[in-house]
Amino acid sequence: MLGTFCVRVCSGFRATSCVRTLHSLPGITVAQIDEEVAKLLELKVRLGGDDGKHQFVLKTAKGTRDYNPKQMAIREKVFNTIISCFKRHGAETIDTPVFELKETLTGKYGEDSKLIYDLKDQGGELLSLRYDLTVPFARYLAMNKITNIKRYHIAKVYRRDNPAMTRGRYREFYQCDFDIAGQYDAMIPDAECLKIVHEILSELDLGDFRIKVNDRRILDGMFAVCGVPDDKFRTICSTVDKLDKMPWEEVKKEMVNEKGLSEEAADQIGEYVSMQGGMDLAERLLQDQKMSQSKLACAGLSDIKLLFSYLQLFQVTDKVVFDLSLARGLDYYTGIIYEAVLTQAGVAPVSNEAQNGTNAEESVNVGSVAGGGRYDGLVGMFDPKGRKVPCVGVSIGIERVFSIMEQKAEASAEKVRTTEVQVMVASAQKNLLEERLRLVTELWNAGIKAEVMYKMNPKLLSQLQYCEEAGIPLVAILGEQELKDGVVKLRVVATREEVGLLRSTQCMLGPSEDTRSI
Amino acid sequence: MLGTFCVRVCSGFRATSCVRTLHSLPGITVAQIDEEVAKLLELKVRLGGDDGKHQFVLKTAKGTRDYNPKQMAIREKVFNTIISCFKRHGAETIDTPVFELKETLTGKYGEDSKLIYDLKDQGGELLSLRYDLTVPFARYLAMNKITNIKRYHIAKVYRRDNPAMTRGRYREFYQCDFDIAGQYDAMIPDAECLKIVHEILSELDLGDFRIKVNDRRILDGMFAVCGVPDDKFRTICSTVDKLDKMPWEEVKKEMVNEKGLSEEAADQIGEYVSMQGGMDLAERLLQDQKMSQSKLACAGLSDIKLLFSYLQLFQVTDKVVFDLSLARGLDYYTGIIYEAVLTQAGVAPVSNEAQNGTNAEESVNVGSVAGGGRYDGLVGMFDPKGRKVPCVGVSIGIERVFSIMEQKAEASAEKVRTTEVQVMVASAQKNLLEERLRLVTELWNAGIKAEVMYKMNPKLLSQLQYCEEAGIPLVAILGEQELKDGVVKLRVVATREEVGLLRSTQCMLGPSEDTRSI
Repeated sequence: MLGTFCVRVCSGFRATSCVRTLHSLPGITVAQIDEEVAKLLELKVRLGGDDGKHQFVLKTAKGTRDYNPKQMAIREKVFNTIISCFKRHGAETIDTPVFELKETLTGKYGEDSKLIYDLKDQGGELLSLRYDLTVPFARYLAMNKITNIKRYHIAKVYRRDNPAMTRGRYREFYQCDFDIAGQYDAMIPDAECLKIVHEILSELDLGDFRIKVNDRRILDGMFAVCGVPDDKFRTICSTVDKLDKMPWEEVKKEMVNEKGLSEEAADQIGEYVSMQGGMDLAERLLQDQKMSQSKLACAGLSDIKLLFSYLQLFQVTDKVVFDLSLARGLDYYTGIIYEAVLTQAGVAPVSNEAQNGTNAEESVNVGSVAGGGRYDGLVGMFDPKGRKVPCVGVSIGIERVFSIMEQKAEASAEKVRTTEVQVMVASAQKNLLEERLRLVTELWNAGIKAEVMYKMNPKLLSQLQYCEEAGIPLVAILGEQELKDGVVKLRVVATREEVGLLRSTQCMLGPSEDTRSI
Repeated sequence: MLGTFCVRVCSGFRATSCVRTLHSLPGITVAQIDEEVAKLLELKVRLGGDDGKHQFVLKTAKGTRDYNPKQMAIREKVFNTIISCFKRHGAETIDTPVFELKETLTGKYGEDSKLIYDLKDQGGELLSLRYDLTVPFARYLAMNKITNIKRYHIAKVYRRDNPAMTRGRYREFYQCDFDIAGQYDAMIPDAECLKIVHEILSELDLGDFRIKVNDRRILDGMFAVCGVPDDKFRTICSTVDKLDKMPWEEVKKEMVNEKGLSEEAADQIGEYVSMQGGMDLAERLLQDQKMSQSKLACAGLSDIKLLFSYLQLFQVTDKVVFDLSLARGLDYYTGIIYEAVLTQAGVAPVSNEAQNGTNAEESVNVGSVAGGGRYDGLVGMFDPKGRKVPCVGVSIGIERVFSIMEQKAEASAEKVRTTEVQVMVASAQKNLLEERLRLVTELWNAGIKAEVMYKMNPKLLSQLQYCEEAGIPLVAILGEQELKDGVVKLRVVATREEVGLLRSTQCMLGPSEDTRSI
């Protein structure tokens, strides 16, 4: 019976060796049999009872993915570039929990609220996974009565959206936000956000880009003077938002046929939203007979003018364009809005199909890689007394950046290294494990990134092959002769050049007291 | 009616200014009234309807916390130390989603499974938040058929435990794992894990520490030769685990009175578990009349001997002790186990009360700051064919390290900086905003971390005060005279020393074409 049982458990566990040695041992004791039986019974329990079957579905949750070491190496590089920029601009960082009280998220995302992940009610508070980093930031400010902060936050957020993973849309994805909260003089922090986008996109070297700028107040003013009824502002705005994916004729058709706007109003809007320019355009529109009738629009236009004056000082006007067709989806924007798009062909544009408008922050634009704006009302929604903390911020579309960097790495001949090991400590002959461990310890203690194979007697060839695979540039080779001479042979893997290095006096003294006792 | 409504909405939103300007404007147009009404109605909707009340509970979920910028600065420092060590040892890193299929976690945590956070069933797969990083790691290896990897993973895990936040026990907390998977020669990777613990704890400078080592097989063998019935191995083991918090007499009482062990067996165990030593103890026990009867124990003891021989080569035996009372809680260990404890008094020992045994990984020991062991069976549990991937790993008790570092920072006179800004660009007189922005742009473009106040005309004193608060070491002061002379005055905040620096030719040329147009 023990035999049969063993056959069954041997498949998955360490039973094989125990059982084999048990049989081969002549002077077996009762205690030994007892302990072997105990081990086997325990294994049986772990195997899930007598039927011994454990069927796992080996997958990650829908819309999520693991990051393998290569993806992590790319991710780290991108994060380093972005974080360096945030730090250069004096930002602090904070972190918030992955879940919030459900009611904290309620009423912040409009229709998209249906995409929020709720936790199961297991007693206690009702919780939801965070949907973005902006609402937790506003909650943090209100809760801690913070009225001034410049912070970045890089973390994962969760949306039960229809995943399109091949196009970089996931249910778990990173957001990478920089925000300036506080009552300051107009447009200075707003301009710094654009400077930051400019710096990051230049440094990431993703190809040419353009930063489109508009203002919520200009949009609203424009709708008013064009005769859009008040209750149609939002829906017409979301149609305007499609101009980067559809020609004007189709957009107009949607406005008139689907949304019931008068053809005249649509045509007037069409005239404005085709306008692009810089400070000059803002000046022209301030003189525009119709536009100038809207106080809101004028306030927005004056701010655009001021913004451009700061952008000139920041030396970023080459990439920034005032574009009246920009209409970002999120409800909470109150002033300036902006969005950066890659303009170079061939950078894997997200197909139209992926743009269903539900994922406003990430997929607003075909080549959108950053976006943001001013939201002066959000923090006040959390404050019991409604105290406002004006905020302006930017979110880098980091998942899209990852995808592009991964594609670039794939296309490039250069291998992405997943470790930073500088030296492999190898041996040319057998029985040199101790010497290898001794040398690698010296290297580690000196702060050098080094590795050694976990084998008693690895072949030199397999040690060298490992270096080539892992991209380790140097091998320190130990052999009997080198040990006798007190040297180590250092080989450059790529060129096979070798130099003999004299080991330091400390090493020349031979085994320390510690090691002699082995 | 409009008036009454305005009073109500003014509390939380930007309505005040709109309404005020509306009244003061003489030549008001219909379009303007329309747009103002639209804005107000929209605000009303956002305020949640006519009653205008929005009551938020301003808190984070039970057992969780935000990290403020100071805590983040400490966290970053700790992570950098730890990650540098992992990289020095050639580790790659991976990441897995925060939630897994519920069934992936099922049957891995025994009684503690009740602490798993489940997500609400919103249609589709049943999901749970990860409980540790080890099970997702095993799932990742099995799913990708990886048989060799040395990886670290630093991420948050979730346990619906009874939180004790003042003692550093949270429902959302970091784990910081390093593991070596693969079929290698005995004890080499195991020894490297201990070397890593030694390096990290030394570098973090948390005070003196000790790394206790034992082996699951030695424990099981010991129980067998002491006459513990097979079905009592696990429960007696968990009583032994309490030896670091209770005297032997109480532990014995629990064994005999509560768990029904014979007094003779308990006394025999008592003799063994009081033993501590190094390689010599392992040698002695291999000769021990009783212990040597257990093949399992002998295998464990031989491996301890081999381990110590490698630890000597790694120069870490000063802190490592072979301790037969060490019995870590987790079920999945199959070989060597270890745990690092801080031995210095006054490092905020976690009180006994916090040790309810439910949080085995984090609170095993009073001063426990790291722990781990060998688990050769876990990956096989995920493989359809039960293929084993031997693993050994270590988890750094990072939350406890954070607490200690925060206490040290609190006690120290040195201020924790939350930004890395090197220079504040300030002005001595009014109307120099443009000049400040021009200079800060030069600094940013040169990669220098710099800030400027977001005010048109900040007082010099408030700019200097900001530097002192934020710990910014240098101020670049611009004044009319400096601009005329083509210099910038650089002041060391701490000493108030000042030097005049000639600005580079590029700057001497005066406003560029770009900026002249303002």
